[in-house]
Amino acid sequence: MAAITDPQLTPGISPPLAPKARTMKALVYLGPGKKALQDRPVPAILEPADAIVKVRKTTICGSDLHILKGDVPTCAPGRILGHEGIGTIAEVGTGVAHFKVGDPVVISCISSCGKCEYCRRGMYSHCTTGGWILGNEIDGTQAEFVRIPYADTSLYAAPAGSDEEALVMLSDILPTGFECGVLNGKVQPGGTVAIVGAGPVGLAALLTAQFFSPAAIVSIDLDDNRLAVAARFGATDTINSADGNAAAKIMALTGNRGVDTAIEAVGIPATFELCQEIVAPGGTIANIGVHGKKVDLHLERLWSQNISITTRLVDTVTTPMLLKAFVAKKIDPAQLITHHFSLARIDDAYDAFQNAAGTKALKVIIDG
Amino acid sequence: MAAITDPQLTPGISPPLAPKARTMKALVYLGPGKKALQDRPVPAILEPADAIVKVRKTTICGSDLHILKGDVPTCAPGRILGHEGIGTIAEVGTGVAHFKVGDPVVISCISSCGKCEYCRRGMYSHCTTGGWILGNEIDGTQAEFVRIPYADTSLYAAPAGSDEEALVMLSDILPTGFECGVLNGKVQPGGTVAIVGAGPVGLAALLTAQFFSPAAIVSIDLDDNRLAVAARFGATDTINSADGNAAAKIMALTGNRGVDTAIEAVGIPATFELCQEIVAPGGTIANIGVHGKKVDLHLERLWSQNISITTRLVDTVTTPMLLKAFVAKKIDPAQLITHHFSLARIDDAYDAFQNAAGTKALKVIIDG
Amino acid sequence: MAAITDPQLTPGISPPLAPKARTMKALVYLGPGKKALQDRPVPAILEPADAIVKVRKTTICGSDLHILKGDVPTCAPGRILGHEGIGTIAEVGTGVAHFKVGDPVVISCISSCGKCEYCRRGMYSHCTTGGWILGNEIDGTQAEFVRIPYADTSLYAAPAGSDEEALVMLSDILPTGFECGVLNGKVQPGGTVAIVGAGPVGLAALLTAQFFSPAAIVSIDLDDNRLAVAARFGATDTINSADGNAAAKIMALTGNRGVDTAIEAVGIPATFELCQEIVAPGGTIANIGVHGKKVDLHLERLWSQNISITTRLVDTVTTPMLLKAFVAKKIDPAQLITHHFSLARIDDAYDAFQNAAGTKALKVIIDG
Amino acid sequence: MAAITDPQLTPGISPPLAPKARTMKALVYLGPGKKALQDRPVPAILEPADAIVKVRKTTICGSDLHILKGDVPTCAPGRILGHEGIGTIAEVGTGVAHFKVGDPVVISCISSCGKCEYCRRGMYSHCTTGGWILGNEIDGTQAEFVRIPYADTSLYAAPAGSDEEALVMLSDILPTGFECGVLNGKVQPGGTVAIVGAGPVGLAALLTAQFFSPAAIVSIDLDDNRLAVAARFGATDTINSADGNAAAKIMALTGNRGVDTAIEAVGIPATFELCQEIVAPGGTIANIGVHGKKVDLHLERLWSQNISITTRLVDTVTTPMLLKAFVAKKIDPAQLITHHFSLARIDDAYDAFQNAAGTKALKVIIDG
Repeated sequence: MAAITDPQLTPGISPPLAPKARTMKALVYLGPGKKALQDRPVPAILEPADAIVKVRKTTICGSDLHILKGDVPTCAPGRILGHEGIGTIAEVGTGVAHFKVGDPVVISCISSCGKCEYCRRGMYSHCTTGGWILGNEIDGTQAEFVRIPYADTSLYAAPAGSDEEALVMLSDILPTGFECGVLNGKVQPGGTVAIVGAGPVGLAALLTAQFFSPAAIVSIDLDDNRLAVAARFGATDTINSADGNAAAKIMALTGNRGVDTAIEAVGIPATFELCQEIVAPGGTIANIGVHGKKVDLHLERLWSQNISITTRLVDTVTTPMLLKAFVAKKIDPAQLITHHFSLARIDDAYDAFQNAAGTKALKVIIDG
Repeated sequence: MAAITDPQLTPGISPPLAPKARTMKALVYLGPGKKALQDRPVPAILEPADAIVKVRKTTICGSDLHILKGDVPTCAPGRILGHEGIGTIAEVGTGVAHFKVGDPVVISCISSCGKCEYCRRGMYSHCTTGGWILGNEIDGTQAEFVRIPYADTSLYAAPAGSDEEALVMLSDILPTGFECGVLNGKVQPGGTVAIVGAGPVGLAALLTAQFFSPAAIVSIDLDDNRLAVAARFGATDTINSADGNAAAKIMALTGNRGVDTAIEAVGIPATFELCQEIVAPGGTIANIGVHGKKVDLHLERLWSQNISITTRLVDTVTTPMLLKAFVAKKIDPAQLITHHFSLARIDDAYDAFQNAAGTKALKVIIDG
Repeated sequence: MAAITDPQLTPGISPPLAPKARTMKALVYLGPGKKALQDRPVPAILEPADAIVKVRKTTICGSDLHILKGDVPTCAPGRILGHEGIGTIAEVGTGVAHFKVGDPVVISCISSCGKCEYCRRGMYSHCTTGGWILGNEIDGTQAEFVRIPYADTSLYAAPAGSDEEALVMLSDILPTGFECGVLNGKVQPGGTVAIVGAGPVGLAALLTAQFFSPAAIVSIDLDDNRLAVAARFGATDTINSADGNAAAKIMALTGNRGVDTAIEAVGIPATFELCQEIVAPGGTIANIGVHGKKVDLHLERLWSQNISITTRLVDTVTTPMLLKAFVAKKIDPAQLITHHFSLARIDDAYDAFQNAAGTKALKVIIDG
Repeated sequence: MAAITDPQLTPGISPPLAPKARTMKALVYLGPGKKALQDRPVPAILEPADAIVKVRKTTICGSDLHILKGDVPTCAPGRILGHEGIGTIAEVGTGVAHFKVGDPVVISCISSCGKCEYCRRGMYSHCTTGGWILGNEIDGTQAEFVRIPYADTSLYAAPAGSDEEALVMLSDILPTGFECGVLNGKVQPGGTVAIVGAGPVGLAALLTAQFFSPAAIVSIDLDDNRLAVAARFGATDTINSADGNAAAKIMALTGNRGVDTAIEAVGIPATFELCQEIVAPGGTIANIGVHGKKVDLHLERLWSQNISITTRLVDTVTTPMLLKAFVAKKIDPAQLITHHFSLARIDDAYDAFQNAAGTKALKVIIDG
């Protein structure tokens, strides 16, 4: 990681932050359809396990768009958005043991207390006092500073000398694609994988599926641009499903067997239906998509097909492993980044991300 | 196993069977709603891997009732019914290595070639030339004799001295409850299990779930008699779901967490719905039920609950293990048997089995 | 758990402890072969994550004897011994979230920070700042009070109404037998298990192996009394290995196959040798024994036998599960307790435990 | 696969083989240190499950050298050597269902009946009537023709259009490196792997380890040439262990942690000792080496290190998966091939293979 040049962050010289006196810029959710870059107080340590992080780079997630649509009732107006990013430790609570002021860190989208029943089982997403709270139930990362609860178990040391932007992909999208799609989908050497949806999450699944060397990874989408990206990222086949023949094409590609792993990375009934049509006997449908309504499950056919269907909110339990793979250059997450903006221009960043069909945006980096 | 007294079966004396000359009694499916005990030719060896088994005891399965309703299109009129039973080897093909005339055997409901891609993966249910064919695509066990294809990999040596009737439960119902419900449901020591449905299959899941010492096994049914049986078989709690409050009761029993394992052993939308209401985050819904129509899957809620849903046609890959557990008296499957009939009275057996609410029938034994 | 009668522990009345002013009785290690019950200051909170526990019941472990022999170099003279026990929270640090003064708790023999790489992988035994430190690198439980670091992740709430003495078995011996022996040994329904050594640890493996309903559990020891206990605890067969024919007897019992799981619960070359002789192809040798010297590994024979050998210092990661199983009465650990002493008579407790052949002691309870 | 040009193999024209009238060239073991290319009768079908394969390409294995040293007592003088190769089906028994005359096939080094307890568990190496018998207990593949028992479950269809020589690597060396080293060693994305020995088997482990994208794969050998090959094949680091400092170098490379997976691919005490020195807590030592004598196991240190040690004779249960990965170009086994000989010059092939230090031979192809 590059040298920390902000003199205010140098430990031992002067108090790095005088929270009450200072304000910062932050993107605030103001109710359905509304957000604004506002001046907000710099956050302060509230609990011994907290850290304050100076955000260096953040990004926008599909979940932020869900919030803006009003689809996430836990997120109240007034909330600072964002749950991804990298930064530098600006202040630590008395209970923080693994980080000190000045340390470069990756912020996990999931806050994990490390102590509750779920955390101890590795299911941090369901941490009884954490989980996905950042930019949702507590203020988030689309700001100059952010308070991170349970810092020791919710931040990760940024490896020295790493590409900072690439590291932002470790906050959420890579573990999401990997845990919910690839691990849950039991991707194996020699296996066949279909990924329905070639948006950022589907592409993250595509990148991380290659850790396990499947024989085929078929990317399916309605957008030829995204399919071209998928092919560049390692998809062995791409299918534009606009003509309604995607299932037939998959069956043809697989000798009429279907795929061992069908990853749903869209979140609507039609794409889940497609997964049911293409999963082979003994295969798995791994859902990543955030669904807004119920879907049909064809148990009248699938009851005897020996399949599994899995759901998962990312736990980020694999972040240490992904960091090792990243340092070892086994994955290049920077490929996912298409646009850059300053925090002052975060509205433009949202526009670009929201109009991905036109802008060809995947992940946009916002510099803090 | 008792001595084989039928002199015709004594090897080395005379040809044990002269198939063309002999006929036998067999229960034949004659189209929806129709069946009859008829005279049929004793089956003959057709392939080197075949064995002819003299059926000593068989039973009736819910699948037989499905066939009689006309719900199983692969089963054509004229077919001898039945896919469970024990018997004695009467004749073997030249390719049979592990059995000889006179050997007592358990007949598996699944025929496994042992050679195809699925068999080599332990997924015998999807054997490309076998699977569930007995009493469905080829003639079955509700007869005096039955031809068993792939005898070496579809029959199991009956342990000497075993209770013959109990062994009939190893043909289908115990592996079904165990593989589709207990193993797929990842039942664990200290875990919580709900079994929706206390019919024979649900009870088989209940018996075999106890192999893994879960902390609680809740049996749910509409029939108080069956719930009383479940309690006797080891359910720690029973819930009559007639009042519509089963989910609430389960949540109360589990400290509002839900169950780690929800086993669906009925096969209708309402029971699958209940499973979705009671499964804990991180839990599993293991479907055993044979469903006739699609169900609603509430991904709008479950997408973030880290659950698995599994389906399975029994593979009978655990039959050797179940036989060992049975011999070691770790399970008492004879508890499932409520009625006995001779083959001549098999129509009465069907009546008793079909009217289980009145007769309190679970499994009925038919003596060959 | 019984009401807490010590008025000093009632929260909100007066400072429960004035550590500097108070002393307590504690058993102190004074170098090889030497120990004494001494007056020591009551421990104080040193870190925000600490708790002080009033010890109600503790016990003696084989590891304590190892320390007294001078075999544990990390344990310096002056150390208070003991790493097992139950008690009541007397004081908590500012970082403790899950316990409050007055709570009844089980003390884990392993201290787990919950944050380091090993803790996050569930390998608490190798916690970079914890692990087995209690009664070894920091003062232990054979005293009136003990300081427990990382209290939230190293203590467990004692279930209300539980048998307190039985709970002491949850500190170390049950998770040790279960994790190092049963889980590592992959005990399965229908499988065959041999446990070499019927001391407390071997018996704990025997009790917890039954969670998985193996077909046979053979207990092997030199002491007929212990073998009688093993038979009472559920061993299906017992073998006195004094005559040197144990391996031959095991092979006879298993149809010359050997056992699926061989658990080594002694810690000397001869017993590990026996495990190598009796493990079946495809089986596992799960070592629990604390070995003082190297052993021979017969790779000249075993290289082609598809076996696994595992070692493990207990992680206590299964303690929550064992507590659930205990509450559900799936295990009765109180069976392991043979003797009771007051803390004042702890020397007699050591004598009884050390001379187990004569006293038939398994676990001895020391009342705080 | 290339067209089959041998007119004698064209079915339907003339009897493809008149075994009694024909002889073939075959390399025959004549006792320790002795072998000769002799005229031998072309083998005939003995059992319904047999096939006769016209060998097109075979190779030499370290096990062949063991036989020649007299170290394999099951292999009697007079035996035709060889257990690897590809060929064309020349004749099939009446029980063979999956192959017909003219089919191109890969010969597995392991014969699997598909029916016994071990085969049904996927442990073909311990098939009660098969296992490693080819070129050992029955005549092998270093000949113009070979009889393959249990053809349906011991041969694999050669994918059309494949590189025939590369396919020879699927007979033994790739599944050996993969199953005994990589799968048993639990190689994972982000993990660290050391492979002790860079001979053909170690290199096969190196190639197949990359299916799982570990962060580091360190190859260790005494021969700089082999280490250079290892680097070319994907080792991230190489260590010449001649100076006795290999363990220290590994610890330095791994931040003093040791490796998650240590693969032993030599078979002598010194290399197994090294594996014990470098395995991290929680790691695995996966033995592939064929050991001639016992080794020291340092349980006095390892008992508390939570490690696993595994042994395995290759089962070839992953051959279908490896074929899929090969067809999908996820692995290039042809890299292992360094030399080519005709069957007439097989003595030269043995010389080249035996003197690998001088000839730099890895695998040598012998054309049938």
